[in-house]
Amino acid sequence: MKKPLILIANDDGIFAPGIKALVEAVKGLGEVVVVAPDSPQSGMGHAITINQPLRLNPVNMFEGIESYSCTGTPADCVKLAKNVLFKDRTIDLCVSGINHGSNASINIIYSGTMSAAMEASLEGIPSVGFSLLDYSFTADFTAATLIAHKIARFVLQNRVHNLYNVNIPKLPLEEIKGIKICRQGQATWVEEFQEGTDPRGQKYYWLTGKFENKDAGKDSDLYALENGYVSVVPSDHDLTSYQVMEKLTGMEIL
Amino acid sequence: MKKPLILIANDDGIFAPGIKALVEAVKGLGEVVVVAPDSPQSGMGHAITINQPLRLNPVNMFEGIESYSCTGTPADCVKLAKNVLFKDRTIDLCVSGINHGSNASINIIYSGTMSAAMEASLEGIPSVGFSLLDYSFTADFTAATLIAHKIARFVLQNRVHNLYNVNIPKLPLEEIKGIKICRQGQATWVEEFQEGTDPRGQKYYWLTGKFENKDAGKDSDLYALENGYVSVVPSDHDLTSYQVMEKLTGMEIL
Repeated sequence: MKKPLILIANDDGIFAPGIKALVEAVKGLGEVVVVAPDSPQSGMGHAITINQPLRLNPVNMFEGIESYSCTGTPADCVKLAKNVLFKDRTIDLCVSGINHGSNASINIIYSGTMSAAMEASLEGIPSVGFSLLDYSFTADFTAATLIAHKIARFVLQNRVHNLYNVNIPKLPLEEIKGIKICRQGQATWVEEFQEGTDPRGQKYYWLTGKFENKDAGKDSDLYALENGYVSVVPSDHDLTSYQVMEKLTGMEIL
Repeated sequence: MKKPLILIANDDGIFAPGIKALVEAVKGLGEVVVVAPDSPQSGMGHAITINQPLRLNPVNMFEGIESYSCTGTPADCVKLAKNVLFKDRTIDLCVSGINHGSNASINIIYSGTMSAAMEASLEGIPSVGFSLLDYSFTADFTAATLIAHKIARFVLQNRVHNLYNVNIPKLPLEEIKGIKICRQGQATWVEEFQEGTDPRGQKYYWLTGKFENKDAGKDSDLYALENGYVSVVPSDHDLTSYQVMEKLTGMEIL
């Protein structure tokens, strides 16, 4: 049987420790190719580059693994892999991450990690975004690597769905209680802008914020993570609010 | 009664004709403030700026309307309006656009126009993204302006939902058949990268693509637009696939 082709992308950039962990996690599962941004792209959401050309440079980052750095966004990396590198081959799985920091709850909206996975899923490629709840550059990816391996294997073997948002608590493996299938928790960013004056006397604003869990449910990803579980949210790119559709039908707008 | 406070944003930038049309559309409905990017931000998805400071500059663009240009993304514009300009006031409505080109179907994922509206809706502000199916800089916004006025008035008066994706066909007003409440249509971008060599002999890739409607349903936004209707999709930021959640529950993953 042919080895499955596995694409790895991320948003922290090709030099981030998290992508190295992801290579370790999936290299035993198939033929692995890495296409990742050449610099950090956190908070890029589902940005794509349309007004500029993109570059794709082969790099020698991971032993024995074909790897490229890309000048674009996480979504651009997946588009280039699909349409330039593997025009004539099927990508069997796309994994993105492992992100340094949470993409649970509404963070999915802002997440470059999840945008790479979502882009692949829009192309029909089963995809998983992985995030570890540890922002540190020196985060310990030991448990996350093992969990990513198992979930990637599951998704390769079970074609139930095309897009998963996986978040892993910052805990040693023995303290992780298991995996929970969850819904996206409701939360909000209470934001402030740090105001300052630059060296030329011009005012600037710099985003800062505090994440607030607004969800009391025990089936949310936030609840799972707070209680020591890995959260797995099957996600979608159909944003229609079907309940509201029904409510609106028949209302006089024009 | 106090006039409602209406925030206008977009992704084509403060100099785009579409935002001028939107100012015209809503200026009779309340106190209008414009915060828009200082340059075009198409395809920015839900990008936010976290690693750089932002600037907010008062501009004199629209007669009698308080306006600011911002160095950030569409989502940044809304965050700055909410947290800097109107820290102590409630924004009653956010309208974004009028975008030059369609944001129907999966285009919502890539859309800066919709990201501004979505950002506002995450803050509990009723929001509408408007797009006209005409990419031209000299597009005729006459019909779109009238339609945006009526929909904005409806959303101000009827607090049914917080996020709408409105697309308007490229037709004179008398040929527009009405408004349809729709779901997000299924479609795909069949993409290619134009390959080239730059002046220094380096290879580049430039994104190009063809939109393909994959949806046979008569309740999709694509169907409505093709048949001369304005499409209104009530949209959501909960991306959970609830059906798949059920399927997965009980499956052995670890």
